[in-house]
Amino acid sequence: MDLRQLGEFGLIEAIRRKAARATRGRSVWRVAIGDDAAVLTPRAGEELVFTTDAVVEDVHFRWRTTEPRRLGHKALAVNLSDLAAMGARPLGCLLTLALPAGIDGKRLDGFLSGFLSLARASQCPLVGGDLTRARDFGATVTAIGAVARGRALLRSAARPGERVFVTGTLGGAAAGLALLERGRLRTPLERRLARRQQEPHARLKEGSALVKARLSRAAIDVSDGLAQDLGHVCEASGVGARIALEALPVMRGATLEQALSGGEDYELLFTVARRGPTARRIGLRLDCKATEIGVITARPGLVVTRAGRPVAMGKSGFQHFKASSKGSEK
Amino acid sequence: MDLRQLGEFGLIEAIRRKAARATRGRSVWRVAIGDDAAVLTPRAGEELVFTTDAVVEDVHFRWRTTEPRRLGHKALAVNLSDLAAMGARPLGCLLTLALPAGIDGKRLDGFLSGFLSLARASQCPLVGGDLTRARDFGATVTAIGAVARGRALLRSAARPGERVFVTGTLGGAAAGLALLERGRLRTPLERRLARRQQEPHARLKEGSALVKARLSRAAIDVSDGLAQDLGHVCEASGVGARIALEALPVMRGATLEQALSGGEDYELLFTVARRGPTARRIGLRLDCKATEIGVITARPGLVVTRAGRPVAMGKSGFQHFKASSKGSEK
Repeated sequence: MDLRQLGEFGLIEAIRRKAARATRGRSVWRVAIGDDAAVLTPRAGEELVFTTDAVVEDVHFRWRTTEPRRLGHKALAVNLSDLAAMGARPLGCLLTLALPAGIDGKRLDGFLSGFLSLARASQCPLVGGDLTRARDFGATVTAIGAVARGRALLRSAARPGERVFVTGTLGGAAAGLALLERGRLRTPLERRLARRQQEPHARLKEGSALVKARLSRAAIDVSDGLAQDLGHVCEASGVGARIALEALPVMRGATLEQALSGGEDYELLFTVARRGPTARRIGLRLDCKATEIGVITARPGLVVTRAGRPVAMGKSGFQHFKASSKGSEK
Repeated sequence: MDLRQLGEFGLIEAIRRKAARATRGRSVWRVAIGDDAAVLTPRAGEELVFTTDAVVEDVHFRWRTTEPRRLGHKALAVNLSDLAAMGARPLGCLLTLALPAGIDGKRLDGFLSGFLSLARASQCPLVGGDLTRARDFGATVTAIGAVARGRALLRSAARPGERVFVTGTLGGAAAGLALLERGRLRTPLERRLARRQQEPHARLKEGSALVKARLSRAAIDVSDGLAQDLGHVCEASGVGARIALEALPVMRGATLEQALSGGEDYELLFTVARRGPTARRIGLRLDCKATEIGVITARPGLVVTRAGRPVAMGKSGFQHFKASSKGSEK
């Protein structure tokens, strides 16, 4: 697509056509792209959830090391992951693109193609958005989801005595980022780790299953890093947690430190009643690996143990702005 | 606020506190800022509407000529105007801020204060968002609204024979922009015109009244310019329109050209049945000036008349990207 030739309305029309192809047959939307706003008819008995997340050139990614298609995928996936962490199914999304006047049309095509392909696969149609010029490329996504009334998984719902679980494996995205920063990817494992960082998978099916099976009331997605995200749950719930380092499901090729503090794995961290099902049964129910890594405590603060003894650990995870932030890519 | 000292989570917490003060007592929100996503309980019989709009430094505004408080107001107001154009009442909003690392804390405070003050006045609480670094300041807003089922005002609902109306006056924002670009504002009228451009008012009350009184089924807000926005309605509805230049409610201090083609007035353009109420009765119902400016025609295309005779006119309105775009500020 050539931005200068198409102009704003031409580009909107081109995106509308692509989005329509991607979203045929969805019926909750009375009006999608093309009016002042999109119109949704909610289902009775459901609540709606909303989340928004942005990616910006040279802050979250560099074009030099980024495939446009994967970036489009990731821009939506991180939002879907927030829906998953609420136990919600996706209903639709809005996309605001900030585009440099001279942007390579192939980059824009690739981005849209990755974005819309995940939108289609996730039944999360693009229903609106905005376009603006900017010096740097940026994409802000708002995702809309639905969950049975009163059943959303909340950061604030963890209770002392509950067991802490995590889906899948941890540390892969951080290991992948380290490999990408170093340069060439040589082995299939290295490529898998890089892909973990560049093309994350949102645990939508698993989040919905947690709600449907009434397995959990509290969850978060691991985006800032396990320690930090568990900290968010503890703070919101007014509790603490104790986790065992040796229990962490470290991805092959990643370090324990990456599993504990690396971000962007987009696994679900959730709590389950003390006398609830075993990890194995939960794994069967979610149709994915689920690992018990610790317990919620009444005493605030996060305690990390090795062989049953507390170990000291620094503050970790990625924060924007702070002078002490790690790296510039996230 | 000092961004480097607060860090990302500190800033989120500071915004959350400000937003909570601004939004006490709203009950459709089960969860607002502080979880992976905000949770809304819709009312029975209502549909939800979604819109998103961004402002970017040096594209939509320059700090040199912009009061941060007014920018915050405008960033939300343009989204509220889209809700108004659907006939929806606001339920809440999400705000993604892209912030340069060294941003002046007073600018950020001013922006948030203008934004949250309008959010409070419009009963449109800030319920979520995202923060990211960026080279240039940017704010992407998503607004969520509600409207009685099947009653949203649509661009696609205009029918031949219907009369075309517009609220308030036109051209003021364009005249104000011209004054701001020239420099000093000297008279009260000049300041009023500038304010029209910098601190627009969304016609929420009027949009809701159009729905409640069943006066209209088709509307759009005048953001790109009357001619262009009426063109959007015609295109979406598969109709044309004829408007009379001498009927346009030109704001004092603005030109006819600014009233026809200047953008950002954020008035509502809507259609009313041929045998529906008079302009005077509609004005009373909406509690604002409403002017009949023309009629919807079966034949596509926009015809502008003066003393009953068609006049030639160029293509107008502001489009991003196109080589022929007007100015760099919008």
